[in-house]
This record gives sequence, C-alpha cells and structure tokens, in this order.
Amino acid sequence: MDQSGNVQHSQPYNKRRGKQSIQFENPVYINASASIVGKKEGEGPLADLFDMVGEDDLFGCNTWEEAESSLQKDAVYLAMGKAKLDSGNVQYLFAGDLLGQSMATSFGMTAYEIPLFGLYGACSTCGESLSLGAMAVDGGFASCVVCVTSSHFASAEKEFRYPLEYGSQRPLSASWTVTGSGAFVLGSTRGENVQAAITGITTGKIVDYGLKDSMNMGCCMAPAACDVIYRNFIDFGRQPEDYDRIITGDLGSVGQRALIDLLAEKGYDISGNHMDCGMEIYDAAKQDTHAGGSGCGCAAVTLAAYVLKQLQEKRWKRVLFVPTGALLSKTSFNEGKTVPGIAHGVVIENI
Amino acid sequence: MDQSGNVQHSQPYNKRRGKQSIQFENPVYINASASIVGKKEGEGPLADLFDMVGEDDLFGCNTWEEAESSLQKDAVYLAMGKAKLDSGNVQYLFAGDLLGQSMATSFGMTAYEIPLFGLYGACSTCGESLSLGAMAVDGGFASCVVCVTSSHFASAEKEFRYPLEYGSQRPLSASWTVTGSGAFVLGSTRGENVQAAITGITTGKIVDYGLKDSMNMGCCMAPAACDVIYRNFIDFGRQPEDYDRIITGDLGSVGQRALIDLLAEKGYDISGNHMDCGMEIYDAAKQDTHAGGSGCGCAAVTLAAYVLKQLQEKRWKRVLFVPTGALLSKTSFNEGKTVPGIAHGVVIENI
Repeated sequence: MDQSGNVQHSQPYNKRRGKQSIQFENPVYINASASIVGKKEGEGPLADLFDMVGEDDLFGCNTWEEAESSLQKDAVYLAMGKAKLDSGNVQYLFAGDLLGQSMATSFGMTAYEIPLFGLYGACSTCGESLSLGAMAVDGGFASCVVCVTSSHFASAEKEFRYPLEYGSQRPLSASWTVTGSGAFVLGSTRGENVQAAITGITTGKIVDYGLKDSMNMGCCMAPAACDVIYRNFIDFGRQPEDYDRIITGDLGSVGQRALIDLLAEKGYDISGNHMDCGMEIYDAAKQDTHAGGSGCGCAAVTLAAYVLKQLQEKRWKRVLFVPTGALLSKTSFNEGKTVPGIAHGVVIENI
Repeated sequence: MDQSGNVQHSQPYNKRRGKQSIQFENPVYINASASIVGKKEGEGPLADLFDMVGEDDLFGCNTWEEAESSLQKDAVYLAMGKAKLDSGNVQYLFAGDLLGQSMATSFGMTAYEIPLFGLYGACSTCGESLSLGAMAVDGGFASCVVCVTSSHFASAEKEFRYPLEYGSQRPLSASWTVTGSGAFVLGSTRGENVQAAITGITTGKIVDYGLKDSMNMGCCMAPAACDVIYRNFIDFGRQPEDYDRIITGDLGSVGQRALIDLLAEKGYDISGNHMDCGMEIYDAAKQDTHAGGSGCGCAAVTLAAYVLKQLQEKRWKRVLFVPTGALLSKTSFNEGKTVPGIAHGVVIENI
C-alpha cells in the first residue's frame, strides 16, 4: 500500500516484469498433483513415478476420445484427493486438450460441476493452464483452482494424422503423442503436502518461422520456446544457471538441438541444464518413439510425476517449465499452411 | 487492508460473490470495440452499426479459414486504433474461435506479437475471453488487454457439418453461423472514448441435459445459460429487473423459449428483458436463418456493434451478457455423444 493507504495492486506495474512476465505478489502453492498414463508410458524410464498406469489405452472405455476424457477425470480426482479436497472446494478448472473443440475436456470435466475455463495452446496448454490458474489465485479471484491437460496417442493420430490401421511410416524427427493426463491443485494457502510454488510466469506469443513439416514439430516449436526462455532471462534479469533445470515440453531430440542453437545465438548457453519432457518419458531407442514424446499430456505428467518431486524433495530449488505447442490442424495442414509455435513459461520453486 | 496493514486482496473472499461470481474491485473499462461481419450480416437489422461489412465472405483470401483469420486480425486492428493503441501497448490477447485447434486465432494473431492465451468455449468464448481479460486487468497483471473471437459460416459448416456444396437441408431449429469477429480493448484506466465497464462475472460450468440434436443447439445450450443466469441472480442478490437486458449469445428463437421456461421454474421471469444476439443479428423470416444466428462471432459483433452503444449512450445502465456454447465436434457427433452446453456471464455497466 502507499502512504494514503490505498492498495496498489490494481496498478499493473507492481506485478509486471519486463515485456512478457509476471512476478506474483505471493507464491501460488502447488498443493497436489496427479499423473495417469497409458501402457507405453508405463514401460518408460518414469514408469515407477506415475500415480496410475493403464493396462491398455482404452481405460475401460469404448472410444479413444472417451478414454482421454476418463484420463482427465481421474487425474483431477486423484489430485483433489491428495489435497484432501472435493469439487466443492475448487473454484475454477483450467483445462484443455488437443482434440477438435477440446472434446476430452468437455466430456471429462462435466461431472465435477466446477466453473470451467476451456483453453487451447496445443501442447503448451499445461503451461497456459498453470499461468492462468496462478493468476486467478494471486489476483484474489480464487483460493483453490485445478489445472488439467491431457493427450492420447490414438485420439491424436486420428485427429491430426492417419488412422492407426494405415500403419503409416514415421520419420525419425516425428514424436510420439503421450497417452496421459496431469492435474495440479493450486492454492493461495500452503497445503500440508505442498509440492512447490509458482512464483512467476512468462507468457508466449505465436512465433512462425515458416516451417511446414508436421513430422518435425520440435523444430517448428523451438523458436517459440527460445523466445519465451530469452524473454524470461531478460524480464527477470536471470541467467540459465539461475534455474536448476530449464524444462521444455516436447521439443524432442531434434527440437532440442534447434533450441540450444537459437539461444546460443542470443548469447545464452542452456546446454548444461536443459531438459525436455519428451526425451525423459520414453527410452527412444528401445521404445521406437523417434524424437521423443509430445502432446499436452507429455509435459503435464512429467511435471507431476518427476519435476515436482525433485522440487518437493529439495533436489532442485527453481526450474523454468516451458511447455511448447505446435499450432496446426488437419485443415491447416491440408491447406499448406505453416506450423507456428507457442510456449508458456512458468517459474516453479521449492518454498 | 486489515488493522495490521496487510493487503487483503490475496484473500479471495474479497472479490468472490457466492459460488460462481466475482465482483471486481475496480471497474474494468471497455475502452474500445470493433466489429467486422460478412455480406449476410451486413444485410440484417444491425447492418448500419458494424464497423466493416465484407463484399463477399472470402475477404480477399483464398480459403474460408484464412478469411476468418483476417476477420480477427482486422477486428483487433480497428479496436486498437479506436483506443489509439498499437500492439506494443497491449499486454495480453485473449482469443478463440470454433475451428479445430483454433486455427483462425493461430493464423490471425501471429503478426501482432502479443502474448496470447488461446481459449475454447465454443460460442461462449467471447464471454470467456472478457472474463479472463477482466481478471487479468483487475488482478493487476495488465493495464491493457484485447479480447477477440470470431466465427465464419463456411468454415464452421465445413468443421461441424457438411460441405456447402451438398446443399443440405436444415430444420427450423437450426441456427446460422455468423460470419464476423468482434474485438474489445479492456483497460485499468478510463479511456477517452470508454464505452462501458465490466464490473463482475459469473463463470459457467458444463451442463449436460443429454440432448443430442446438433441441429437444435439452442435447446442444448439453454440449461447452461439458465444455470449461469440463476447463479448470477443468487450470487449478486439481484432480480431480472436489475438488468436492462439479459443478453444470451445464440440460443435463437427455440432456445429462448427453453431458457425462459427453465428460469420460470426457478421463480425468475426474464421474458420482459431477455435478448438473444442470434435473434437480433438476422431477420430470420427474410434471411432464411431459421432459429437465428450462432457462432462466437455472433455474440461478439452484437456486443460491439449494438449492446455497447446502448450502454455508452446511457440508454441502458446495466446488462448481463451471457454468450452460450454448445460443446460438440464432428467426432463427438459421429460417436453419438450428447451436446453439453456452457455459458459465461459478464456484467457490463455504463459508468
């Protein structure tokens, strides 16, 4: 407050940092998280860390889309349970997925009867949901919100590419859509099982380098990731080493090289502490996933199952979590459009 | 602040009203708005009020999707111009459309290089964007944001129904997707051409009555509209007559009857002051639009071209603006799913 006793938070420059970032006035606590994945993810390097692994990818449903809805529903249920909350305690849901008209969210969230903000940022949606959820909490609009995103290999292949039955060949630059959903309970007060806190965000703009190869989404998204990470360094006056890890969502092995090169051109070397969720979730050689995992489930389940545990157990102090999205659709692909990228940065710390 | 001098805004109950609503601490000013529509809308009852009317629905582009992107781009450009701003002054874009993976937004907003939050709430997206945009401003995260949504008859028919060339017959309960885009400049300070202010919001949850008729979306959405309007009355302790108009997005003539009946069952009569944007934008009899207009462009252009002018010119004091969305996709329709609805309420006043 100022001398006249007026609350100053309605003056934006209090919270804004530089051109694209926000430093929250109070830490927004991640009081619980949950991750559910499919069979293939359950056979990968992070297998033991997920809360639930499906025996098959239908999860007892009749269609791939219903299966993805049930992933979201169950992830939210598990996360609320860990935080000892029920849907009556949650004031907003911030949710999204990759399907046309966000159908996994629409049919997965209905039963909770919680006011919902539907989001679409392709595979960056996890970062978008955490950003808006944290703004809702820090802005004094909610004491508790849940953020959830999902993807499903089969529903995504059907949505973006070819029916699985075609057995299409995939180039080595292609990624494998993660079957999974991650949910996060954010609160204004510290929960007893608090995992970490969101202290700031750097919100991305659409970046289009004119690339059109939907089988190399890592390179399509790398410029957007570079832009957000660079802005985060500038806006907060930080260097790569101020983060224990700089964690992109699903650039994969090809996109990672592009990102490291692009940031090197701007004078920043993140080769020592960059991590990509898509490269962590599968053993690319053994599991034939080529460049790595992708999908808004990829960053979400890796954050919930692996990253937050490192922060909670104090192995890491601060990370920059940067889910990355490739903005394309079947129609835009068929009309020969480019594949622009977007990324959303979230600063997460152990406190 | 409390006696200890602590700023209390981080305690949610300051701003929250009831279960689903927010009363903003300061009015969020709508400092400018713009509307662009297609040929058919330019021949309707609101023709003279739109900022721009296309000579044809391609707007000089090669595809319907590119045309919709250009609608969004031009609407934002016009709105920023009226507010004497350029993209450097705008801290966030809150944008969305009806297309799979929100392609109209992805290709329409790239050039502005403004941090973007992509949204999906079907035809309720205009209300969702104004709600989140107002939260960003009132929460102290931005001094200026732009909210934009669009729809296009031809791109929507292709996305949800059949190629236009099929000449499919449409039942009288069907609506006609509006070709248009509306953009709104929200600010924490009062602009010289301020039109009105957002003073509160009531955020909707997904409501599914089990209806499956995608050619009668008005009835699919009416329960969600009823729920939000009812919650708004309860949360703010208001009666229908506290609003000069209660304005739904695109229920059309069939959905309007359902909404009025549903609210009557809850003891509220809105028959005297209910207005539906879908019924205002076309002359249904002369223009063969059956139940009325729909699409996220419908509520957006009607708000920009008509509703805000009534508030700015003090003919109305306060309205409850409730864009309504039907949550379906080609896939969900083909898989025999229901059509749940969602609606987002925004309280707009002349001040």
